[in-house]
Formats: sequence, C-alpha cells, structure tokens
Amino acid sequence: MLQVLAERHFPLAALRLFASARSAGQTVLVSGRPHVIEELGSADPRGLDLVLFSAGAAVARTEAPRFAAAGALVVDNSSAFRLDPDIPLLIPEVNPDAVAGWTPALGRRIVAVPNCAAIAIILALKPLHDAAGLERVTVATYQSAAGAGKRGLAELEAETRRALAGEAPGAHVFAHPIAFDVLPHIGSFGPDGETSEEAKIVAETQKILGLPGLRLSATAVRVPVRVGHSAAVWVETRSALAPDRAREVLASAPGVVVIDDPATASYPRSRVAAGTDAIYVGRIRRDPTVPHGLLLWVVGDNVRKGAAVNAVQIAEHVLHVGAGGAPASAAVAR
Amino acid sequence: MLQVLAERHFPLAALRLFASARSAGQTVLVSGRPHVIEELGSADPRGLDLVLFSAGAAVARTEAPRFAAAGALVVDNSSAFRLDPDIPLLIPEVNPDAVAGWTPALGRRIVAVPNCAAIAIILALKPLHDAAGLERVTVATYQSAAGAGKRGLAELEAETRRALAGEAPGAHVFAHPIAFDVLPHIGSFGPDGETSEEAKIVAETQKILGLPGLRLSATAVRVPVRVGHSAAVWVETRSALAPDRAREVLASAPGVVVIDDPATASYPRSRVAAGTDAIYVGRIRRDPTVPHGLLLWVVGDNVRKGAAVNAVQIAEHVLHVGAGGAPASAAVAR
Repeated sequence: MLQVLAERHFPLAALRLFASARSAGQTVLVSGRPHVIEELGSADPRGLDLVLFSAGAAVARTEAPRFAAAGALVVDNSSAFRLDPDIPLLIPEVNPDAVAGWTPALGRRIVAVPNCAAIAIILALKPLHDAAGLERVTVATYQSAAGAGKRGLAELEAETRRALAGEAPGAHVFAHPIAFDVLPHIGSFGPDGETSEEAKIVAETQKILGLPGLRLSATAVRVPVRVGHSAAVWVETRSALAPDRAREVLASAPGVVVIDDPATASYPRSRVAAGTDAIYVGRIRRDPTVPHGLLLWVVGDNVRKGAAVNAVQIAEHVLHVGAGGAPASAAVAR
Repeated sequence: MLQVLAERHFPLAALRLFASARSAGQTVLVSGRPHVIEELGSADPRGLDLVLFSAGAAVARTEAPRFAAAGALVVDNSSAFRLDPDIPLLIPEVNPDAVAGWTPALGRRIVAVPNCAAIAIILALKPLHDAAGLERVTVATYQSAAGAGKRGLAELEAETRRALAGEAPGAHVFAHPIAFDVLPHIGSFGPDGETSEEAKIVAETQKILGLPGLRLSATAVRVPVRVGHSAAVWVETRSALAPDRAREVLASAPGVVVIDDPATASYPRSRVAAGTDAIYVGRIRRDPTVPHGLLLWVVGDNVRKGAAVNAVQIAEHVLHVGAGGAPASAAVAR
C-alpha cells in the first residue's frame, strides 16, 4: 500500500501508520523518512482525510467507523463492509458511479475494496456485459499463495523447499500442504458446501455489476503459485458475441490487456502479470455447448490490482487526486 | 507399466521389452531378472499374446498394427487410435461392453487407453449419467507435470529449485516456465483456439459414454503439481439429483472413492491420490444456477489409473486374466 502510494505520487501532506499494539512504537522508513507506528485502537482519529485499512474484518468492523466518524474517507480492504447495502463496493474502472455525488470534503464515509479474485473476474466481465448482456457465468479459479498474505507466501516457499529435500510437510497457514498440490479450499465452508471465497466471488460480482440475479457459480482453488490469481471463465451472453468482437471489446476496456495469440503460445500468465496493475485476458474462444457462449482465461496480480492498487485508485477517484486535487493527510492501518 | 504388472500378479509366461534403437541392447531388471531391450522397429512380432504400447502416437500408428496382425492383443496408451470408430476406447469399469464378444484367443486387435484427464472425469460422470442423464458438462482441469512424462516431472523440480534460488528459468518441456505458475496450454492449439488436450477430453468422453452429442466444454491447465490430475466439474443432469444422492451413487461406483467432509477439510488432493488406483470425488454440491446442477472436484493419479493401471486392467478384462485365465506372453513397448 505504501509502495503504491509512492509509485502513483499520491499527494501526501502527512502520513501516519497504525497497527496493533505488537507493532506500535516501531519505526518504519517511508520514502526514506522515519515514521513511528501508532497503536490503532488508541489512536486519535482526527485530522485525517483518508485512511487505508488493510486489517482483518473484525478489526475493520470496530475501527473503520471510528475514523470515518472523525471525518476521514476510509477505504477498507477486508470483507467487513463489502455486502453492506449502504457501503459502495468499488472498482473505479467498473462502477465509478457507486460514489456519484461524493465530494472530497464530505469524508465520513467507508468504501470497500472487493475480493482479489472478484476484481480480476469483474474487470473482464464488465465489457462483455455492456456488449452483450451477461446471462450466466461459471468460474474456476487458480489462486496464488499470496492471497493468504505474507505468511501464505512464506509457507509456500518453505514447504516447497521441504518437499524438494524429501522432508515431511508441516502446513499451518493452509489446511493441507500446499507444495506441489492444489487445494479446493479458500476461506471456510458454509452449510451448502460452498467456501466463503466462492460465496464472495458470487455476491460481490452481483453487487458491483448491479445484477443481483446474475447466475454465477464458482469453484475457488489454491494453487502453488507465488503471486497472481488466474481463472477459467465461461460466459453465456444474452446476444451473440463472437470471439473477435469480445477481443476488441476487452482490449478497449480500462484496466484490461488482451494477450491472445495461440500461434506464439501467448496467453496471460501470473509470472507476467505479477508486479503490474492490469488484468490480462486471453484464450478467448467460443463455447459451442450454448447458444451464446465464450471461454476466457483471466489473470491479475492479486496483491496489486486485487488489493493495494484498487484501494489507492478508490482514494484517487473519491478525493479527485491525480486530477489536480489537494494533498491529503492519510494513514495506512493494518 | 512393469511395476503395475508385478503388483497385480499378472500371470506372465514370458516378457519381452521393446524400445527405440537408442535403448535397444540395454539390460533392465524386472522382478530381479535381467531382460535385454529389443529394438521395436525390427523386432519379430510373433508369439505374443499381449503388447502394452507406451510410445508416442506416430510410433504406435506404425508398429501397433504389425504386432496385432501377428496375433497379439495390443493395448495402446497413445492418442493414435482413440477416435477410430473400429477401435474400442476402454475404461473397464465404465464401458466393458466395448469389447463384448472378444475372446482371449481372438488376438489381432487393438484397444486404446483414454487420455489421463478424461479417464478421471469419465469415472465420475458415468454413475451420474446412469442416475440422472447428463445434459451438459463443464470442466476446468489442474493437470500435473507428470502428464508430460518423466521429462515434465524433472523439469518441474529443476525449475522450482532454480526459482527458489532466484535463478532465471529455462523452460524446455513446457511452453513457459512451470515453476510457481499455471499454464492454460496442454498439447497444441487448434484453429478455434482449443488445445488438443481439451479436444481429447471432449471427444473421448463422448465416445466412451456413447453420447456423441454430449455438450462438454473444457479448459485444460498445467499446474505445478508432481503427480495427479484434478478437475473442477460442473454437471447438468436431465432429472434432479441431490448432492446426497450423487454422493451415494458415486460411493458405490467401481473405481471411485468419495472424500467429502468439509467439516474436517476432507476433499480429494493429488498428494493423497498419487500412488493409488482410485479416482477420488469430493466437494459435491448443488449448482443453483441451473435446474439440475451439481459441482464436483475430481482427482486421480494420471500415471496409474490415468495410464498404466487402466492399460493392464484392459488386458485383464480382454484376456480374462485375474479370473483364472492362462499365463500370457507379453511385451511392453515404449
């Protein structure tokens, strides 16, 4: 988040850092300048224009409203507020009007950042919906270890080293050993056998696209990839949409890059997507099993566009930063 | 293949080994006894009851008919004969009648072993079809490096070691670096953007289930797993089939094991499937986006049931071995 603020030259008048009591008091260098971490729970929330929350849902539920009430715009990365009908769930390229009428001076508001897998899929679905109307969507994901945070990434690497050395696995972050295996289990299981991750992909896509009745089914799978979520997506549209036309529509969509040349084995890959801010779409082809069917392969950096970049873009959009807006007093809380 | 013959106590009267000129003359120990590899192209095909082919499609096309003409039953693992309408494509648990009326004495016949991903998926689909009628199937695969042979497996391990050491990748077997990445590319691309692997899954499923019009769409993806293919499968059936009933039907199907207890994070995993001969099905749940929809997660050892075990089972079935059949003179060709 701090890196993305710096990269995008976000005009900071001042910056404060908040974390739990365990990290409070530590000094962090941001753009070469020392910042002392404050304890989130006891911090004075006043005087901030923007707070970027990257804590868990439980912390966000308690703390985010306190900062919003004190006047800040809060952009929250957790799932705490995403399905709250009063809180916008925003991908600036997709549903910018969810914050229509908001002014930088308004503050006292919370905006939620969608689930990282959902962001990538929705960026690919939106232009297809505008062109031909979504009827039904089926998604199988291939989600990286970084989706489980720094500890997930560290566990993938440590477990893989162990597996290569012939040592026994020792899973902690993931339910089972993740080295050289795929696990159809992200989040927790609900009563119908659906995982919380699958439920998020469905409900958040419906909310962001404004299609509460959209028929969408997802299987979410953790794969031994470091950074970058991929998805195989089947799309049924109301009217016909040829693969060539879908390619055009996607290529001109904001935030989307088409990589689709089978002849040169060119298609989106997490190795290429990682570290960039676009969502990549390829392997666009007809699904002949339904009247108007398309298949896609979608890849995006889940840490950047799937989280930090989308959060900072939300702040830019609401605070009119990057279009000559005034410097903001901001905070990052985790 | 040799290991599976030994494990299953296949009654061998004699065994010959064939390979290319490069390997011919080498001595291989089978069950402690030395066997000298013969050159396949110049070998005398006479006197064999059974030949298990594990060569490529080009070699199989030339050599398999020569051994069949000399009287042997040929079981071929390549794609050469799979879609030939005169040649059975056999999963003994699924379509044993494809060789109805064949007798061990008959010989002079070729039977094809299906694609490794198709075998796993079909074993799960067959009982559902019998129970409720398949209407439409959608498949996203997660296929292991071993599907690309020993060299694929070696490349996954070598590339992963390199990636962990921060060294540059050097892909050879796969189109792109496979360490910590997923590649939606198995086989070669056809004119419609479909890969040959995807086309095999569709056409072989239709042939084996005897449903030439079955609507099936697949995306085949290579994942950094050593052994074991997984698949997310969406099934639409003609009549209603509740998840509980699907679980019962699958649990009683030959060759299928159900692992499906979300409460204990129990679902099929390649780590558990590898080295075993069953196909595992779990995460069985309703797909609420269609009238009669189910989701499944299917995993199998692609080297065993996906190839060697299915090949030996075909030989047992046709030659009536394992039910008091006579010892056979067999050969393994690669």
